[in-house]
Amino acid sequence: MDIKQYMKQIGERARQASHAMAKADSAAKNRALTLIAAAIRRDADALRAANKLDLDAALANGLEPALLDRLTLSDKAIATMAEGLEQIVALPDPIGEISNMKVRPTGIQIGQMRVPLGVIGIIYEARPNVTVDAAGLCIKSGNATILRGGSEAIHCNQALAKLVKEGLAGAGLPQDAVQVVETTDRAAVGELITMPQYVDVIVPRGGKGLIARLMAEATVPMIKHLDGICHVYIDDKADPKKALDVAFNAKCHRYGTCNTMETLLVARDIAPSILPQLAKLYAEKEVELRCDDEAKKILAGYAHLASATEEDWSTEYLAPILSIKTVGGVDEAIAHINRYSSKHTDAIITEDYSRALQFLREVDSASVMVNASTRFADGFEYGLGAEIGISNDKLHARGPVGLEGLTSLKYVVFGHGEVRT
Amino acid sequence: MDIKQYMKQIGERARQASHAMAKADSAAKNRALTLIAAAIRRDADALRAANKLDLDAALANGLEPALLDRLTLSDKAIATMAEGLEQIVALPDPIGEISNMKVRPTGIQIGQMRVPLGVIGIIYEARPNVTVDAAGLCIKSGNATILRGGSEAIHCNQALAKLVKEGLAGAGLPQDAVQVVETTDRAAVGELITMPQYVDVIVPRGGKGLIARLMAEATVPMIKHLDGICHVYIDDKADPKKALDVAFNAKCHRYGTCNTMETLLVARDIAPSILPQLAKLYAEKEVELRCDDEAKKILAGYAHLASATEEDWSTEYLAPILSIKTVGGVDEAIAHINRYSSKHTDAIITEDYSRALQFLREVDSASVMVNASTRFADGFEYGLGAEIGISNDKLHARGPVGLEGLTSLKYVVFGHGEVRT
Repeated sequence: MDIKQYMKQIGERARQASHAMAKADSAAKNRALTLIAAAIRRDADALRAANKLDLDAALANGLEPALLDRLTLSDKAIATMAEGLEQIVALPDPIGEISNMKVRPTGIQIGQMRVPLGVIGIIYEARPNVTVDAAGLCIKSGNATILRGGSEAIHCNQALAKLVKEGLAGAGLPQDAVQVVETTDRAAVGELITMPQYVDVIVPRGGKGLIARLMAEATVPMIKHLDGICHVYIDDKADPKKALDVAFNAKCHRYGTCNTMETLLVARDIAPSILPQLAKLYAEKEVELRCDDEAKKILAGYAHLASATEEDWSTEYLAPILSIKTVGGVDEAIAHINRYSSKHTDAIITEDYSRALQFLREVDSASVMVNASTRFADGFEYGLGAEIGISNDKLHARGPVGLEGLTSLKYVVFGHGEVRT
Repeated sequence: MDIKQYMKQIGERARQASHAMAKADSAAKNRALTLIAAAIRRDADALRAANKLDLDAALANGLEPALLDRLTLSDKAIATMAEGLEQIVALPDPIGEISNMKVRPTGIQIGQMRVPLGVIGIIYEARPNVTVDAAGLCIKSGNATILRGGSEAIHCNQALAKLVKEGLAGAGLPQDAVQVVETTDRAAVGELITMPQYVDVIVPRGGKGLIARLMAEATVPMIKHLDGICHVYIDDKADPKKALDVAFNAKCHRYGTCNTMETLLVARDIAPSILPQLAKLYAEKEVELRCDDEAKKILAGYAHLASATEEDWSTEYLAPILSIKTVGGVDEAIAHINRYSSKHTDAIITEDYSRALQFLREVDSASVMVNASTRFADGFEYGLGAEIGISNDKLHARGPVGLEGLTSLKYVVFGHGEVRT
């Protein structure tokens, strides 16, 4: 198969389908989502059978247990996919809304209409549920989508794609609105990220390695974050209980997520009292603490103590490891964060009003928090209803990205024959 | 001079200055703008002297008259620059505003704060007034900026830069917030557009050739439009007077602007009555009409008649030339526009309600208009107060870009010690 030619055809079909999707009304889009959910429940057995083909191949190839786990389509995972689609049905349709309408002195009325981006390319790894989640969000936001899942999940993804197409057809929408790339050849990804004439934005979902590779080559814009090096700063005016609760939750609620704290900053004046209490909590989870000299002295005797190196301040551990640095106060904390943070999510714990506002204003990250766990940085927790990804960039979407991140605003002008003089 | 090293230093200084600019309050930013305006008026003679050096060199180099005209800093141009800054003072400061604040079931309150992008790179050609306009908009929006003007205007731009720095210093803001690249070496542009660690967005202002060159090499995102192939579609339900007014104004108000109509689409049923009337208006301006067969037949005898080729539908003339195509109706008009338009600005002339709404929804361009001249697509006309550029892209800013396009929204979370469970 000529991959270049194959991807070009997929691109052309997606672009074509995107015009029909942009015009589709809410009822048709919701009908498609409802039909897909029903088809997934109906064909649960067939989906598991397809998944078994993938799992057998993965076992034969010696895939890691963590990846096998993500690849597995359990009964619960199948039910969750169908429910996820029904939740998307319940979200308001963002498309067509006109806002900010103003009358200008010339007589024209000007506002902005929310419209789909067009064609969204999604590149992801093992999890087959992404196929359905991403298809659902793209359908609801009036976009066409090209899905490129991991080669490990190819049978399952193709079985799901068939159900998605069935639902689209049942609602009178073009089946090409959702296309799953059917080759596992890596060159297909290279094509997908370099055809801006067919693809308006790429949303990569996967590890840092995948995204860094894509960034180096892509000519299509991406909504992406590379890593989450998130900070909590405990100010000397912090409420100790809040500090303990948040610093423990931000590190230990889940280790492998991008909104997990990786570095704790502590004000010098509160470090001697707060750090030993915190260490008691971390000790239960056997969290390794990589400290600067001051913090290390305070924590002498802690079972999993180590010295932080310069590299630690830029490391996303995704593991029960935490780097700790003592700082003089809020200014030093902000400077450290703006230097080392991945601009994902950073929090201050303080009861001081002015320092809270200063931190919110000056920390240059997608999410900035006062007295709350960084773990809240998430589309569902923020009330977006669904999340297609997270962006650490400043242009277009920033932070958790929901339906609105898959749309654009165009200007609409209502005139009465006005001309410019 | 080592250009790479030189640009790196400029980038580092800009990044550093951007932190102070992001914190600056409105009063300081407005004070800087007011001081710069006063300094420009005070030093009008010196500015003209610097401009004379540029003009003399340009004459010696045989620069085209049109470019010489743009390069000239007249008394009026100097006054307009100063007034422009004072108009920016009067605009509301977008920075720090928090919107969409919501309480979530977990207890956290979540909203979005408008913040500067950071460092804006502006690349432009001869016009020295861009130096002051762009500096003013970047200062007001709390950004640092690196300005790279045309080599023809180097003396004038450096004289202006000195006044800008004087104003920044007088307001207690970092002088590095506005830096003018002092070398005319083209390699400096190559560096500027490939240092994403120092520059957050590039705004190129210039011809299609400049922008296409930059696009091919840039790794920093750009706010840009390549060209303006704008359409007016005269529906058979058009009010003939509105059709004549708009179609004449959209072509003939100014030929060289990106929002000028380049292709006129006419519904078959109204073409025989409207085209001859329109031709009478165009005849006065000696506009060449490049027509499809049907329109050509109707306009037989017109003095400047030609046959349109396929290439005409994708050509931005920037001249008294217009391509004309007959279409069956609104569907065909939309299909033609979505195929050939540069996604800048397109208008329908109709009294039919449903067709107007259909056109607004389905034409995939940055500005879509009903019964108004495409010439209105402009930051001032849209009420943005000022314009840094125009974007034909769908991500981030779309259409005329004002202060808001130089900003980003970050999420802010107000908590009370909440953790995720």
